[in-house]
Amino acid sequence: AGDAGPINDFCVADLKSALLFNGLACKAPSMVTSDDFAFTGFRAAADTNNPLGIGIIPGFAGVNYPALNTQGLSLAKFNYAKGGLVPPHTHPRASEVITVLKGEVHVGFVDTAGKLFAAKLKTGDFFLFPVGLVHFQLNVGSGHAVTVSVLNAQNPGVQLMASALFGASPEIKD
Amino acid sequence: AGDAGPINDFCVADLKSALLFNGLACKAPSMVTSDDFAFTGFRAAADTNNPLGIGIIPGFAGVNYPALNTQGLSLAKFNYAKGGLVPPHTHPRASEVITVLKGEVHVGFVDTAGKLFAAKLKTGDFFLFPVGLVHFQLNVGSGHAVTVSVLNAQNPGVQLMASALFGASPEIKD
Amino acid sequence: AGDAGPINDFCVADLKSALLFNGLACKAPSMVTSDDFAFTGFRAAADTNNPLGIGIIPGFAGVNYPALNTQGLSLAKFNYAKGGLVPPHTHPRASEVITVLKGEVHVGFVDTAGKLFAAKLKTGDFFLFPVGLVHFQLNVGSGHAVTVSVLNAQNPGVQLMASALFGASPEIKD
Amino acid sequence: AGDAGPINDFCVADLKSALLFNGLACKAPSMVTSDDFAFTGFRAAADTNNPLGIGIIPGFAGVNYPALNTQGLSLAKFNYAKGGLVPPHTHPRASEVITVLKGEVHVGFVDTAGKLFAAKLKTGDFFLFPVGLVHFQLNVGSGHAVTVSVLNAQNPGVQLMASALFGASPEIKD
Amino acid sequence: AGDAGPINDFCVADLKSALLFNGLACKAPSMVTSDDFAFTGFRAAADTNNPLGIGIIPGFAGVNYPALNTQGLSLAKFNYAKGGLVPPHTHPRASEVITVLKGEVHVGFVDTAGKLFAAKLKTGDFFLFPVGLVHFQLNVGSGHAVTVSVLNAQNPGVQLMASALFGASPEIKD
Amino acid sequence: AGDAGPINDFCVADLKSALLFNGLACKAPSMVTSDDFAFTGFRAAADTNNPLGIGIIPGFAGVNYPALNTQGLSLAKFNYAKGGLVPPHTHPRASEVITVLKGEVHVGFVDTAGKLFAAKLKTGDFFLFPVGLVHFQLNVGSGHAVTVSVLNAQNPGVQLMASALFGASPEIKD
Repeated sequence: AGDAGPINDFCVADLKSALLFNGLACKAPSMVTSDDFAFTGFRAAADTNNPLGIGIIPGFAGVNYPALNTQGLSLAKFNYAKGGLVPPHTHPRASEVITVLKGEVHVGFVDTAGKLFAAKLKTGDFFLFPVGLVHFQLNVGSGHAVTVSVLNAQNPGVQLMASALFGASPEIKD
Repeated sequence: AGDAGPINDFCVADLKSALLFNGLACKAPSMVTSDDFAFTGFRAAADTNNPLGIGIIPGFAGVNYPALNTQGLSLAKFNYAKGGLVPPHTHPRASEVITVLKGEVHVGFVDTAGKLFAAKLKTGDFFLFPVGLVHFQLNVGSGHAVTVSVLNAQNPGVQLMASALFGASPEIKD
Repeated sequence: AGDAGPINDFCVADLKSALLFNGLACKAPSMVTSDDFAFTGFRAAADTNNPLGIGIIPGFAGVNYPALNTQGLSLAKFNYAKGGLVPPHTHPRASEVITVLKGEVHVGFVDTAGKLFAAKLKTGDFFLFPVGLVHFQLNVGSGHAVTVSVLNAQNPGVQLMASALFGASPEIKD
Repeated sequence: AGDAGPINDFCVADLKSALLFNGLACKAPSMVTSDDFAFTGFRAAADTNNPLGIGIIPGFAGVNYPALNTQGLSLAKFNYAKGGLVPPHTHPRASEVITVLKGEVHVGFVDTAGKLFAAKLKTGDFFLFPVGLVHFQLNVGSGHAVTVSVLNAQNPGVQLMASALFGASPEIKD
Repeated sequence: AGDAGPINDFCVADLKSALLFNGLACKAPSMVTSDDFAFTGFRAAADTNNPLGIGIIPGFAGVNYPALNTQGLSLAKFNYAKGGLVPPHTHPRASEVITVLKGEVHVGFVDTAGKLFAAKLKTGDFFLFPVGLVHFQLNVGSGHAVTVSVLNAQNPGVQLMASALFGASPEIKD
Repeated sequence: AGDAGPINDFCVADLKSALLFNGLACKAPSMVTSDDFAFTGFRAAADTNNPLGIGIIPGFAGVNYPALNTQGLSLAKFNYAKGGLVPPHTHPRASEVITVLKGEVHVGFVDTAGKLFAAKLKTGDFFLFPVGLVHFQLNVGSGHAVTVSVLNAQNPGVQLMASALFGASPEIKD
C-alpha cells in the first residue's frame, strides 16, 4: 500500500515515453479508450515445458496493462504442469492475494519469525502473502493447475530467492 | 491506495473486539494459524433468486477474512443469473480489478467527464474500475455467470447509486 | 488523504507543460512569486441563471490555482440562486469541508449503509463530506447563498450522479 | 498529506476514551448522528482583548469537531482586532489554506531558502502555507478582521516561533 | 515509506499495553520525558562469539526505543568479528541506509533483475538497500568492525534467507 | 513518512534533467552502477571556521547522493568546533534521528505545547526529532564533535528560525 494515490481518474501509461519519474508517463486522456481498461492477456496459456513446470503471464502497468499505471494494482497468471513449482520468492513492494482457477495448489509463506503458514488450496480458494515475505506455490493436484494473483502496487517486483542468492550477476563473493 | 501500510507481518483482525480505531484490533500473533490466511468462502455459490439476479459473497477483513486487516486488500464474488445486473455503484476507498470466472459479462465505468468506458468480458478477462467512479456489471451471456473482484483497500465501501439517491433513510427531501 | 506528500516546499504547476505524470510539472522555482500563492478567483460571483440555480468557481491546481500542485488541497466556491441545488455527486479522491458564507444551506451525505446525515447550515457553519460518498447542497434560505469548500486532494474529481447514470457518453445500455 | 486514509466512512472520535494510538478511538457507529457532522463552533467570535489582538477558535477532531477524526482535515478561525497579529508559527504536520471572511489581512510564509512570499488579502481571497513552513497573519485593515483556515491533517500542530525559541519550558540553555 | 504519518508530536509506545492495532499504544503524554527520546542502547558492544561472528542490537519502537512509535524510523547496530557475516536477508517494510563506524565492510544488494550492486565501505561511508531487496554485510577488514543502520519504518521486519528457505517451522515440504 | 513509496527498485536521480515533477527524474537503469549506491561524501570534514562553529555536509538525492531519489531517506553530517551550535531549526517534511560520532553534544526539541525535551548525548547515542518541530544541537564537549543524522524523506527541507524570522528576503514587515 505504498504507491501514491492517483491524481486523476486514470493515467494510462504511455509505454513509448522514455521519461522516467517515480511512475510512468500518461497517454493523452483523449487517446484513452475502453480497450485500455479491458485486459485479455490471460486468455492465453503460458508454456510450462521447462524444468520448473511453470508458465507466467504478467498484467503489469509497465508491460502489457498500461491502464494500471497510478492505480496501485497489478496481476499475474501462472500455469503449472503436474508438480509445477513457483519457487520461494518475494515481492518487495506489495501484498498479494492468490486464487486457484484450476487444480489443487499448495501455497505458503514464511513470516519474519521463521514460522511457515501454508495450505492446500482448491479451485476458488484464496490465500494472502503479506508484503515482502518469502512465499511459494506448488501444484499438488493430479493434472495441470492455474492460479491468478492480484497485488496492491503497480510494480511489486519479483525476487527469486535462488537467483538472488546463487545466480546474481556478478556473483556474490564472500 | 490510501490505507496505511502494515506495521507488522500480519495483524489478523480480532472480530470479537469492540474497540474501533482507524482499523481493527489484531488477534494475538501466537493464536494465528495457516487457516487464517486460507479463504474458502468463495466455494459456495450465492443465491441469485432475487429481482436483480445477483448473489454476492464478500471477502473482507471485518466480515469473513480477518487476515486481510492492515494488508490493503479485499475481495468480492458475484453470482449472476441470466441477465443478472450489479447496478451502478461506487467504492469510495479503493480501485478494483474484476475478472470473469464463468460466462460473458458487460462491465463499465463512467469517468468524471461523463465518458463511459465499457467492454464485454469473456472468461479470464479483467477490467479496471478506478477509485470512486460509478461502475456496473451485467451478465450478457446465455447462462449463469461468475466474477471475482479484488480491491486495494481493506474496507472499500459500497454505495449503490439507486439506494443513495432514492432509498436513503431518512429520505433526501429537496 | 491519498495524494503523495510534497517533495519540495512548493511545486507551482506549469500549466503550459504537456507532460503528464501522476501530478503536474513544476514551474522553475526562480519564476515563482507571491502572486502564485494568493488566490483572488473567488472575488467574482458565478452566474446562477441556469436550471439548477448554481454557479461554480473552482480553485484547482490544474485550472486556476497552480500553487496547490503537490499540496493535497483544492477549493470550490458555489453561488446559489434562491432554491439553487447542487445535485447529488461524489468526489472520488477527497474528503470535503464546506462552509456557508451567506444564506442558509441544507447539506447532507448518504453513507454506505444508506443512512442520510444532513443539516441546515447557517452562515459560518461547516459540514463534512467523507471521501467518495454521495452528497448534495440546497439553498433553503430566502435569498441568494454562497458556500466555499476545501478538499484534501489536489484533484478530487466531481461525478454528478445524474450525469453518470443517465447522461454518460456513450449511453449506458443495459 | 501524511495522515493515513480512512478505513471506514467515518470514525467520529470518542473524546471520552483514554486509549491513545496513532489517532483517536471511534464512537460506536450507531451513536453517530447528523449533529456530529455539522460544526457550529465558528458562530461565536473569539475575544481579541489581549496583547496580540487575536482570538482563536479551533475545529479539531480531538477538541470540538470529532467527526474529523481519520478524515485528514482540521479547521481554525481567527478574530483580529485592528492591527491584530498571528505571529510567526508553523504547523508541523499539514499544509494550510487561509481565507479572509472580513477585513484586509497581510499574510506570508518564508520558504527554506529564506525567501518571503506574502500578499495583502481582501475578503474572499485565499493563500497557501505549505506544510511546515513559518508563516504569519496581520490585520492591516481599518477595523476588525476574520479569517478561516483549513488544514490537510486532523491534528496539524501549532508551534509558535517565539514560544519555541524563548518560552520553552524548561528554558533552552546554550 | 509505507507507515502512516504521525497524528501527534509523539506517541511514545506503552510497551506494557497488550492491545494491538496497526501500531502500538501511546503512553500518556504527561508521562513522557527527555529520557524517552535519548537512546543509549548502542553504547554496548554485542557479543560476536558465534558461528557468523555477528552481534546485533536493535533500536526498535516495540523493543527498546519506544519513542520511535509512529515516527517511521528504526535502528540497528552490528558488531562484526574478523570475517563476520550478516548473511543475505530482506526487510519487507523499509529501505535502509547503513554506515560503517569502524573497519571495512563489504555490502551489497541484488535487484529484482538479479543484478548485484556492492561496494567495500570504509569508516563513515554509507550504502542504500532499497525496500524489500536481498542484501548482506561482510567484515572484510583486518579486525573488528561496527556498522549502524537506519530504516524508514518503525518495524521493518528481518527475514533471513537461509532461515526462510531451510529453517522454517514447520519445514517447507515440496 | 509522507513521501510516496518507490515504484521501482531504484530511480537514481538524473541531476542533469531540468524536468521537475513531485520528485526527480531517474537515470536510465542500465546506467546505474554500484558506485551510485555507495556514498563517500562524509569522509571529508566540513570547515567549522565560522561564527557558529559548524560545518555541514548533506547527503541528499538532489545534491550529492542521487540514489536516495524515491527512497524516502536523506543524510546530513555536522562538524562542530568547541562550542559549535546548530541553532534552532525545523525540517518541514521529515522526522530525524541523530547520532554522535565524536564528542558530547547537547540536543533537544520543543514540542507544540512548548515543552523542551533535551539530553546530553555521548558517542554512539541517538536522539529523535519528530517531524516539523524546532530542534538544535550544541557541542558541549571539550573538543571537536561530529554527528550524523538520517531523515525519513528525500528532501526534508531546513528552515533556520533566525533566518526565517529576522533574515527573510524581502524582510517581514509588520
